[in-house]
Amino acid sequence: MAEYKVPLRDMNFVLFDVFKAEQLWQDIPALAESVDKETADAILQECAKIAEQVIAPLSREGDEVGVSFDNGVVTTAPGYKEAFKTYAEGGWTALGGDPEYGGMGMPKMLTALHEEMLCAGDISFSLYPGLTAGAGLSLVKHGSEELKQRYLTRMYSGEWAGSMCLTEAHAGTDLGIIRTKAVANDSGSYNITGSKIFITGGEHDLTENIVHLVLAKLPDAPAGARGISLFVVPKFKVNEDESLGEANNVTCGSIEHKMGIHASSTCVINFDGAEGYLVGEINKGLACMFTMMNYERIGVGIQGLGAGERSYQNALEYAKDRIQGRSATGVKNPDKAADSIMVHADVRRMLLNMKALNEGNRALATYISMQLDLSKYATGEVQQKGDALTALMTPLAKAFFTDIGLENTIAGQQVFGGHGFIREWGQEQLVRDTRIAQIYEGTNGIQAMDLIGRKVAANKGQFMNIFVEEVREYISATSSAEMAEFIAPLTAAIDDLETLTAGILAAAANDQNELGSAATDYLHVFGYTALAYMWAKMAEASLDKADSDDFYKSKVLTARHYFARLLPRRISLAATALSGAEHLYNIEDDLF
Amino acid sequence: MAEYKVPLRDMNFVLFDVFKAEQLWQDIPALAESVDKETADAILQECAKIAEQVIAPLSREGDEVGVSFDNGVVTTAPGYKEAFKTYAEGGWTALGGDPEYGGMGMPKMLTALHEEMLCAGDISFSLYPGLTAGAGLSLVKHGSEELKQRYLTRMYSGEWAGSMCLTEAHAGTDLGIIRTKAVANDSGSYNITGSKIFITGGEHDLTENIVHLVLAKLPDAPAGARGISLFVVPKFKVNEDESLGEANNVTCGSIEHKMGIHASSTCVINFDGAEGYLVGEINKGLACMFTMMNYERIGVGIQGLGAGERSYQNALEYAKDRIQGRSATGVKNPDKAADSIMVHADVRRMLLNMKALNEGNRALATYISMQLDLSKYATGEVQQKGDALTALMTPLAKAFFTDIGLENTIAGQQVFGGHGFIREWGQEQLVRDTRIAQIYEGTNGIQAMDLIGRKVAANKGQFMNIFVEEVREYISATSSAEMAEFIAPLTAAIDDLETLTAGILAAAANDQNELGSAATDYLHVFGYTALAYMWAKMAEASLDKADSDDFYKSKVLTARHYFARLLPRRISLAATALSGAEHLYNIEDDLF
Repeated sequence: MAEYKVPLRDMNFVLFDVFKAEQLWQDIPALAESVDKETADAILQECAKIAEQVIAPLSREGDEVGVSFDNGVVTTAPGYKEAFKTYAEGGWTALGGDPEYGGMGMPKMLTALHEEMLCAGDISFSLYPGLTAGAGLSLVKHGSEELKQRYLTRMYSGEWAGSMCLTEAHAGTDLGIIRTKAVANDSGSYNITGSKIFITGGEHDLTENIVHLVLAKLPDAPAGARGISLFVVPKFKVNEDESLGEANNVTCGSIEHKMGIHASSTCVINFDGAEGYLVGEINKGLACMFTMMNYERIGVGIQGLGAGERSYQNALEYAKDRIQGRSATGVKNPDKAADSIMVHADVRRMLLNMKALNEGNRALATYISMQLDLSKYATGEVQQKGDALTALMTPLAKAFFTDIGLENTIAGQQVFGGHGFIREWGQEQLVRDTRIAQIYEGTNGIQAMDLIGRKVAANKGQFMNIFVEEVREYISATSSAEMAEFIAPLTAAIDDLETLTAGILAAAANDQNELGSAATDYLHVFGYTALAYMWAKMAEASLDKADSDDFYKSKVLTARHYFARLLPRRISLAATALSGAEHLYNIEDDLF
Repeated sequence: MAEYKVPLRDMNFVLFDVFKAEQLWQDIPALAESVDKETADAILQECAKIAEQVIAPLSREGDEVGVSFDNGVVTTAPGYKEAFKTYAEGGWTALGGDPEYGGMGMPKMLTALHEEMLCAGDISFSLYPGLTAGAGLSLVKHGSEELKQRYLTRMYSGEWAGSMCLTEAHAGTDLGIIRTKAVANDSGSYNITGSKIFITGGEHDLTENIVHLVLAKLPDAPAGARGISLFVVPKFKVNEDESLGEANNVTCGSIEHKMGIHASSTCVINFDGAEGYLVGEINKGLACMFTMMNYERIGVGIQGLGAGERSYQNALEYAKDRIQGRSATGVKNPDKAADSIMVHADVRRMLLNMKALNEGNRALATYISMQLDLSKYATGEVQQKGDALTALMTPLAKAFFTDIGLENTIAGQQVFGGHGFIREWGQEQLVRDTRIAQIYEGTNGIQAMDLIGRKVAANKGQFMNIFVEEVREYISATSSAEMAEFIAPLTAAIDDLETLTAGILAAAANDQNELGSAATDYLHVFGYTALAYMWAKMAEASLDKADSDDFYKSKVLTARHYFARLLPRRISLAATALSGAEHLYNIEDDLF
C-alpha cells in the first residue's frame, strides 16, 4: 500500500483560493480571535504529520488483530493506546472544542479537513476521537454548567472519551420505540436501565473514563419520539473532588465481529440502574442528540472522502508501477516488456473518476463546513442562510460522500486487479472499512428521506431555493468566455434540479410515497449538481494560473473530466426519481 | 441468514415458457437423445436438493475457518470433503461432460442453472467443480485421445479435479510475457518449470489427483502471445495401468489470504521440471485456453447472479420481519409498535431492483447459454448465429452479471442496516465473496475492451448487428396493444444502442483510444438493453396468465419496474461513453 500523503496543497487551495477562508474568518469576530491563515496552515501541517506518521501505520495491524473482548474488558489493537496518547497530548482532541472549557475553537472548515486526514489514515482510529467530539457538541449546547465543567473539560483534554448510546436490538432508526428506562432517584440523578447495541467506542482501554450519552424514557413519558430524554452516564462516577470514583453500573456485554473497521470496538452496553444525569430538558432528548448527529453525519460522510483519497493514492501508485499490455495507439515504453497500465483508457477513467469525485467532495465538504461555521458564528441573514444550507446539506454530505467513498474504494481495488483482493495489499480493507459509513449514523436511505422529506418537502423547497438562488447568482456573475464551458452545463444542471424538485413535490401532493420513491435518486442528482458548482468554482480559481503551474492545470483538466464524464449521471437519476411510486406499491408484498 | 431456496419455478419459466427449450432440444439431434423436459425438471430438482441441503450449509463455516496451508499441504474447510464426495457421487461433476468419456452431455442452458444454484449456495465450493469442468472443456476439444481417456474420464467422475495455471506474478492479463518454460524431453513429454500465482483450486484435499492445465513457452517460441503452449501437468503422474504413480514436481508454495471466498484455495503453484503433456499444437496454447475461458467467463458471470439471488432472498426475509417506523401513508400494522420496513418506498426500491436484475440476468444467462448450445450442436446459419452471439455476449455475461451481482449484494446488505455489516448474519460475506468475480478471469475492464474491441470494432459491428436484427424482428412480430408499454421503450433502447455503436466506431476511426474510453459504459448500455429484450419476452410469456396466477402477475409487475426504474440507466451511460477520450489523455500522468 502506498504511504498516505495528506493532500495539503489541495486543502489549502479549497480553503483559501476557492472559499477565501482568510477573509471569512477575519469578518467574523468569534473566529478572527482564534484563527488566521498562518494558524490554519500550521495546524494542517502538524495534523498531517500525525495522520501520516502515527495514525496511518496503525491501520493494517488494526485490521488483522482487531479489538478483543474478555469478560467485559475490551483491549484495542496494537499501538492504538500509544497513538491515542500522542494524539491527545498534541491537543487534537480539543481542536473544535469550546474555548470556555479548554477547547481550541477552530472552525469546522478546518476540523473537517483534520477529520479527512484521520479517516484516510485509519477509519477505526478516527472513530474514538470522532465520537468524543460529537458527544462534546451535545454537552456544550445542552449540558448544565456543572456537566460541562466536570465532563467536557476532560473530553477535550483527551483524558476521557465519549460514546453515543441510541440503538437497541429492536430499534435502530426508529428511536421512538426504545425501551431503556430512566427513573429519577433521591439524589437528583436518574437510574438508567436497558441494553444498547452497536455502540461505537462503548468500551475500550484508550482512556480512563468513558462518558456515555444515553437515550432513555422516563416512566411517564409520552409514547414515541416525544418521550425520549438524554443522559450522561459515565463509566466511572466522578467524586466531588473531581477524582474518579467507583464504577457505575455500566458493562460491556460483548463486541461485534464485523466486515470491516475491526479495530473499532462496536459494543453491546448494558445499563443496570446506572447513575445518569439529565442533559437538556426531559423528553427533549432527541433534539439534543441531533445537535450531535448533524456534526457526526458530516463526519461520517468525510470517512467516505478519506477512504476515497487513500484509495486513489494507492491505485495511482500501483497503476504507474504495474506493466501489462501495450497502448492502443502504439508502444509507449519500448525498453520494457509492456507499458504501464496508465496507458489504458479504462484505467485512466477509473483514476480520473476517483480524482474528480474526491476533489469535488473535498470542496463540497468544505463548503458545507463553511455553512456550519456561518450558522454558528455569523449573524442576521448570513447566519440564517447558513442554518438553512446546513440543514439541507447534512444528509447530502453523509450519504453522497459515503456512496462515492464506496465507489472510489471499489474502483481503486479494480485498478489493482487480483492484488486488490489480497489482504496484504491493504486495498480491500478500504472497501470493508468504508462500507459501514453508508449504514451507520442513519442509513443512506434514511438520509435521502431526511433530505426530500424534512429538508425539502416540509418547507416546500424553501431551503433548496436558497441553494439554487446562490448558484444562479454565481452563474450570472461568471460571464467570462473561458468559463462558458463550465457555466453552460452547470446552468442546465441547476435548471433541471429545480424542475425535478418541483416535479417530485407535485407528485407527492397526490401520493406521499412519491417522496420515498424519489429519495435516493434525488439525493444523488443534488450531489452531482452541487459538485458541478464546486468544480466550476475550482476551475474559475485555477484558469489564469493553469499555464504556469501544474497544480492548477490539473485542476482545470479534472474539472473538464467531471463535466464530461460524471455530471451526466444526473440525467438517468432524474428520470428514475420521477418514475412513479406505483411501480413500487402495485406489487403486493407476497409477490416479491 | 435465510435458508436458500432454489428459484425452481423461475428457472422452469425461463427455460420452457420463455425460450421453449423443449422444442429447441427436440429439433437438435445431438440434444434430443440426451435431454427432454422431464429429464431437465428431474435434474433441476435433484440439483436443488444438493445446493440447498449440502452446499449452502457449508458457506458460513467455510468463510470463518477457510482453507489452511501447512508445508505444502492444503486442507479445505470443514465439510467440504464430504460435500464434494456427495456431489461427485451424484454424478454432478459429469453433468455437462462429453458422453464419449463418461459425461452426461447436458446442454449449457441446463448446466448454467445448475451453476447458479452452486454459486448461490457457496461460491467457494462452486469453484472446485467449476474449474474442473472448464479444464475438461479444453481437454475435450484440444486434447489427444490418450489424454482424454486418461484424464478426462477421471475428471468427469469427480475422482480428480482440474486447475487453470495462467497468471504469473508479473503477468496477469498480459499472458504474452509469461516466463514459465517447457522443454521437450526424451520421452515425448515436456519438463515444465516456472511459478504461477492466483491458482484457484491449485492444491486441495478434495480429490486424489489434480490435473493442471499450464501455459508455458518453449525455448524457441516466438515472443508474445503467439509463443504460448498449453500442457497437462498432473499433480501425480499416472502409470501405464492407469493407477496413480509418483508425485510430479509440482508443489504449492503458499495460499493467499483474501477479502472473500476464504474456503477456495488460491495458490502459488511451483513447477520444477514437472512432467507435462502438450495439449493441441505448439504455440497455439492461448486459443486452447480460450475454449475454456469462454465457458468459465459465463460461469464467473453466474457467480454474480447466484450471489444476487441469495442476497435478495436474505434481504426480503429480513425486510418482512423487521419493524421500524411507520408507512408514509398511515399506520399499516396497528397491533405492533412499528410497521415492517416493507412499507418504505426506498426498501421496496432496493428489493425490486434486485428482483428485476436477478430475474433479468437469469433469463439473459439462459439466452446466452442457448447460443452456446446452438453454436455447439446446431448447423448452418443457426449455428453461425450462435457462434457470433456467443462471442459477442461472453464478455457481457462475465462483466455485467458480476457488476450487478456486487450491486445486488450491497443493496441486500443495505436493507439489513447495521446487521448487514455484522459477520454472524452472513450477508456481508456475500459482498466479499462476490467482489472477486469482477476481477478474476479477466477484470471487467478487460471484458469491456474485449467487447468493444474484438467483438464489435474488429468486425465493424457485424456481431452486434445480428443481435440488433433479432431484437428488431421480435419488435416487428410483437404488435399487441398489451405489449406496447414494453415494446416502445425496447425500440428506443435498441435504436440508441445502434446509434451509440456507430458513434463509437466513428470516433475510434480518428482515435483508437475512443474504444477504451467508451468500453465500460458501452458494455453496461448493452447489458441494460439486452435485459429490456429479456423483460419484454418475459412479460409477453406472462401477460395472459397474470390474472389467474400470482407468479405471472409478479413477472408483469417486475417487468414494469425494470422499464421504469432500471432501463433509464442506459441514458447517462450512453452520454459518458461518447464523452471523448481526450479528457482521459489530455491530463499527463504527472498531473494525476
